[in-house]
Amino acid sequence: MVLHQPEPVDEVSPVAIVCGGGSLPLRVAEAAAARGRKVVLIGIRGVADPQIARFPHAWIRVGEGGGVRRAVVRHGCRELCMIGHMTRPNLASLGFDWETLRMAGRIARLFVGGDDRLLTGVARMMEEMCGVKVVGAHEIAPEIVASEGKMGRYGAQARDLADIRTGLAVLRALGPHDVGQAVVVGEGRVWGIEAAEGTDGLLERVAAMRHNGRIRVPFGVGVLVKAPKPGQDLRVDLPAVGPQTIEGAARAGLAGVAVQADATLVAEPDKLVEAADRAKLFILGVTQPADQ
Amino acid sequence: MVLHQPEPVDEVSPVAIVCGGGSLPLRVAEAAAARGRKVVLIGIRGVADPQIARFPHAWIRVGEGGGVRRAVVRHGCRELCMIGHMTRPNLASLGFDWETLRMAGRIARLFVGGDDRLLTGVARMMEEMCGVKVVGAHEIAPEIVASEGKMGRYGAQARDLADIRTGLAVLRALGPHDVGQAVVVGEGRVWGIEAAEGTDGLLERVAAMRHNGRIRVPFGVGVLVKAPKPGQDLRVDLPAVGPQTIEGAARAGLAGVAVQADATLVAEPDKLVEAADRAKLFILGVTQPADQ
Repeated sequence: MVLHQPEPVDEVSPVAIVCGGGSLPLRVAEAAAARGRKVVLIGIRGVADPQIARFPHAWIRVGEGGGVRRAVVRHGCRELCMIGHMTRPNLASLGFDWETLRMAGRIARLFVGGDDRLLTGVARMMEEMCGVKVVGAHEIAPEIVASEGKMGRYGAQARDLADIRTGLAVLRALGPHDVGQAVVVGEGRVWGIEAAEGTDGLLERVAAMRHNGRIRVPFGVGVLVKAPKPGQDLRVDLPAVGPQTIEGAARAGLAGVAVQADATLVAEPDKLVEAADRAKLFILGVTQPADQ
Repeated sequence: MVLHQPEPVDEVSPVAIVCGGGSLPLRVAEAAAARGRKVVLIGIRGVADPQIARFPHAWIRVGEGGGVRRAVVRHGCRELCMIGHMTRPNLASLGFDWETLRMAGRIARLFVGGDDRLLTGVARMMEEMCGVKVVGAHEIAPEIVASEGKMGRYGAQARDLADIRTGLAVLRALGPHDVGQAVVVGEGRVWGIEAAEGTDGLLERVAAMRHNGRIRVPFGVGVLVKAPKPGQDLRVDLPAVGPQTIEGAARAGLAGVAVQADATLVAEPDKLVEAADRAKLFILGVTQPADQ
């Protein structure tokens, strides 16, 4: 896995970055800024890192679409990127403004269905409300996208590659059902599939099954495979890995982590490699086999 | 869901029942005996309920195929049924006898892959070693198989039926990958998929996500759907539900439980209905829609 080299961009309008939780929003902003792009961060209150205040920024509540529109207009943004963790909110906790509430029926419908449908719907509403084009984090910050090949010191063995193929096949089979983006496979057997619990929850579960004897396979066997769903809207829901993914995989006794090249965000590549080398885990960027 | 009426059987040789853990083996033995079939219970030591001693019986260790063969020959069994929980054993814990060890290479290969492949392989070895025909629990004790329709007082609503259809579709998609037999769906979204953790683990996880706010949907919404994998060997790995499934579903705040009719074992129907009525959950026997 090598990192993409920055290329100069000719966009002159700042890109609006709607920031959820975690370290990714700041990393995306830093990477975009480093390649000369102006950024405006729009933080979701109580969720986004307060450090977004290092950049031109605004704060909104979840559901406050008007706040996004005002920030976009004020700064003359023509592109908007949504990035970071979002717990699926319940309707009561949403701080709807009147502007957004006009779309309430449409929003309610979005909540029936998977994450992908929800996020794609929110992206479409942002485009309509704010007159922007929604772009993926990988488009404004290609430096933090995984490439094909190994990252760090350790490589995958033949056994791991077989488990990775199985994992990719399972994720492909689940694609039409808008389920999670991660699976753990060991010795050809599916140990866990991510749904609403998230990747960290999946890894914790595998660690627990190793400890309680439900999985009786030596440590250093098994792979976490992450990949976007087939047909997934990459603008709004790219899978991501960070050092905590590696730490979770190490606690689960896995051999390594495979991510889909060109479609996985790596928030902190240096720390990721450091964590993987320390835990003697491989990290591998893979492409979906075309023949399966 | 109505229970099948016992029909007289004309088999005269006793059926051997290899007993894993849980209450199912005794229920199957009782049901078979109640319809006039002679039974010989072969308990896996440390796993099977000591109460199997109420019937003609023998004890073996996991991997002691010779013990099974001797019991089968002594009692003149021509059919054999394997039933009950089995933790996937590690090789070191297996009490292989010489007779079984001759098949060690073949057994080792079985351990690479899903449960279904392992159990089907064990069934084939039993047939070869013992000269018996392996039959499913539903064949010798059809009384304890779920039928189509509702069981207990409560029925499923339109919203639940939509979630059930989604759940069945997810299980069908996973079928070729020999993953679990259960999924939890609520409001059209897949909340959890069973892999190595088992159904109880899946329900615990959904309960935890309800409590930690990862699932923010009112109690009384969501369905546990259990069904065998497409093409699954029903002789060795029928899904099963019991009162503890209902209790887990209640803790997870679900509306009810759907099981595939004619292919799900109900160990204790009376207790199951009692638990469901008390928790105000529905239990529904469904058939896979042919059009999907």
